[in-house]
Amino acid sequence: MRADVTAALEAFRRDAPLVHCIVSTASMSLVADGLLAAGARPMMTETKEEAPTLVGSADALLVNLGTLSRDGAAGIPATVAAARAAGVPWVLDPTAVGLAPVRTPLARTLLHEGPAVVRGNASEILVLVGGQGGRGADSTLEPAAVAAVAHELACHHRCVVAASGAVDHLVDATTVVRLANGTPMLTRVTGTGCLLGALTAALVAATEARIAAVAATALLTVAAESALERSSGPGSFRVALLDALAAVSPDEVATRMVLQ
Amino acid sequence: MRADVTAALEAFRRDAPLVHCIVSTASMSLVADGLLAAGARPMMTETKEEAPTLVGSADALLVNLGTLSRDGAAGIPATVAAARAAGVPWVLDPTAVGLAPVRTPLARTLLHEGPAVVRGNASEILVLVGGQGGRGADSTLEPAAVAAVAHELACHHRCVVAASGAVDHLVDATTVVRLANGTPMLTRVTGTGCLLGALTAALVAATEARIAAVAATALLTVAAESALERSSGPGSFRVALLDALAAVSPDEVATRMVLQ
Amino acid sequence: MRADVTAALEAFRRDAPLVHCIVSTASMSLVADGLLAAGARPMMTETKEEAPTLVGSADALLVNLGTLSRDGAAGIPATVAAARAAGVPWVLDPTAVGLAPVRTPLARTLLHEGPAVVRGNASEILVLVGGQGGRGADSTLEPAAVAAVAHELACHHRCVVAASGAVDHLVDATTVVRLANGTPMLTRVTGTGCLLGALTAALVAATEARIAAVAATALLTVAAESALERSSGPGSFRVALLDALAAVSPDEVATRMVLQ
Repeated sequence: MRADVTAALEAFRRDAPLVHCIVSTASMSLVADGLLAAGARPMMTETKEEAPTLVGSADALLVNLGTLSRDGAAGIPATVAAARAAGVPWVLDPTAVGLAPVRTPLARTLLHEGPAVVRGNASEILVLVGGQGGRGADSTLEPAAVAAVAHELACHHRCVVAASGAVDHLVDATTVVRLANGTPMLTRVTGTGCLLGALTAALVAATEARIAAVAATALLTVAAESALERSSGPGSFRVALLDALAAVSPDEVATRMVLQ
Repeated sequence: MRADVTAALEAFRRDAPLVHCIVSTASMSLVADGLLAAGARPMMTETKEEAPTLVGSADALLVNLGTLSRDGAAGIPATVAAARAAGVPWVLDPTAVGLAPVRTPLARTLLHEGPAVVRGNASEILVLVGGQGGRGADSTLEPAAVAAVAHELACHHRCVVAASGAVDHLVDATTVVRLANGTPMLTRVTGTGCLLGALTAALVAATEARIAAVAATALLTVAAESALERSSGPGSFRVALLDALAAVSPDEVATRMVLQ
Repeated sequence: MRADVTAALEAFRRDAPLVHCIVSTASMSLVADGLLAAGARPMMTETKEEAPTLVGSADALLVNLGTLSRDGAAGIPATVAAARAAGVPWVLDPTAVGLAPVRTPLARTLLHEGPAVVRGNASEILVLVGGQGGRGADSTLEPAAVAAVAHELACHHRCVVAASGAVDHLVDATTVVRLANGTPMLTRVTGTGCLLGALTAALVAATEARIAAVAATALLTVAAESALERSSGPGSFRVALLDALAAVSPDEVATRMVLQ
């Protein structure tokens, strides 16, 4: 696994994939800066008039349900369809599904549109199979509690399920990878989950989905550990996280992964 | 007053209120990061399809007229009505009212919907009673110049009026609290006024409106004073402000308040 | 030229122009903070219901096609018309034109509405005369490759064309100024090109278009050089850039310009 992660991150750095992101307005700046820092390139347009055309030139697509404007709700289905038609792999981040009346059925519908990876916190994963959500965008569960559900989703939709939390669970039909890197400080900065979805999409452009999910999670959480040492609160942590995403080497990420 | 502020901030830190924010697009990132740094949790969705449902699970609501998209203009009245029906207290921030043809009548209408606190700069407060606005989002007046107007609004609408400026005026029907903390550097960072509105909403979830307005204003302005010492310009001030919002203790805020 | 730049930046700092910005959602925060840091004041509203009224009180307008929401696509033509009617100068930033089916014809139409300056990367400039675009928002060309096209545009539309890249080309009907300041780190932070467009609009409020384009470009790129020395990656560079925009003096900008 460590060699696969190193190779995936090296390919990612070499190719600088162009990632089309439909993402929470509150997170756009961190997602775009995080992709640029890590070595990818962001593109962000959500209208149904432009996004389906533009996604065809991208290397991957992230669909994050975030703040979900009416432009986004109208543009997402056509953009996902255009991505599939063009062979552009895509990642679904079902942010804050649960009570929300538009995004919850939309996320369940999109599951049938062939996402390479579904990334969310444990509550969001549970909602996809009919369970209750968390509170706002926060999970009330840890990934271990939804491991069986994640496996069911992965089998049924032939995708990788990345359940984020203190110990991240990266699940496909046959394997589970548990990663214990990171810091609770990641939850004190808006959009770090969205950025993980975007990095996952960037890695999906470079390698198979299972390795991509592990490599993206390791990249963000190892960088976060470095950033924590250079920060004195959530403001400076956010800045140091971007610096660390640019500075960390593929080898360092792979070596520092804590597999459980 | 100092003991009340300490108790309010302690309750706020303990409860970590979930604050639904409809807020300027330009300020979303600072508002969300500022709430998280201070110890609250943000939730940001503005469409009339989703926001009225989601606000029912929040502890408080901020309605900031900021960049006012068409999604927001359509979603705000229903979201405020849903908040009232669910007993969720709310704060009105009538950003940049004056010339603007949609937000100006909208703000005046919303005054009749029972906001717990109205927070704005002096020009914005004056517009609410029919006066002229500032220029863009900037005030051309200081709070002392609108003290009588703020008192009239507070009596008529049974709310607290928080007029922000070099000396903040927190006004209800029977009392005025004048706070002289802060730094002009706050005006060199986009969204600090919006963040004050959001912190006020977060505090309104924890205590009565009058104390909430004072505690939120003191929290932001005392943190700003600490941040100024650790910064060398508006970029590093913004970062240090987030660090300080996380680091400052309720006691320190209450002790350092400069009451006039 | 250096004396003109000093005088323009001094006028800009003295007047603190109010700049109405219709700009990419992903860049709003950097653009607003960058204008405030440099000494201007931002105003950001894009709906056709409010923007045409508000632009009349601004000193300049930036139209950046960025993420181009449906609100923006509907609001831009009326806002530009209102700006012209009120004598407010405006800057066109045709972000990511090329494949995009709405913004590409919109940008070509807006060229006929009298922009004082057109600012873009080399690929975007080429698209305005019918050429192919870059990839996403990235240019695949350097400004020198489109110098003839820029001159043609400048003559035909009686505007200044600011083609950004490693060596910025500021072109009008009779002269070309080549500026070689800056750092590739500017391409690792989202919105620095958008911020250059906004600073150009702010300077257009203070002086003639040709000097404005040179002064704005020099301001950003000289500040970037200072920021690079104080940073250890793209996160801290973004912070240091805002600090440097506030700290750099008009004289220092003019003295450090590298003219080619």
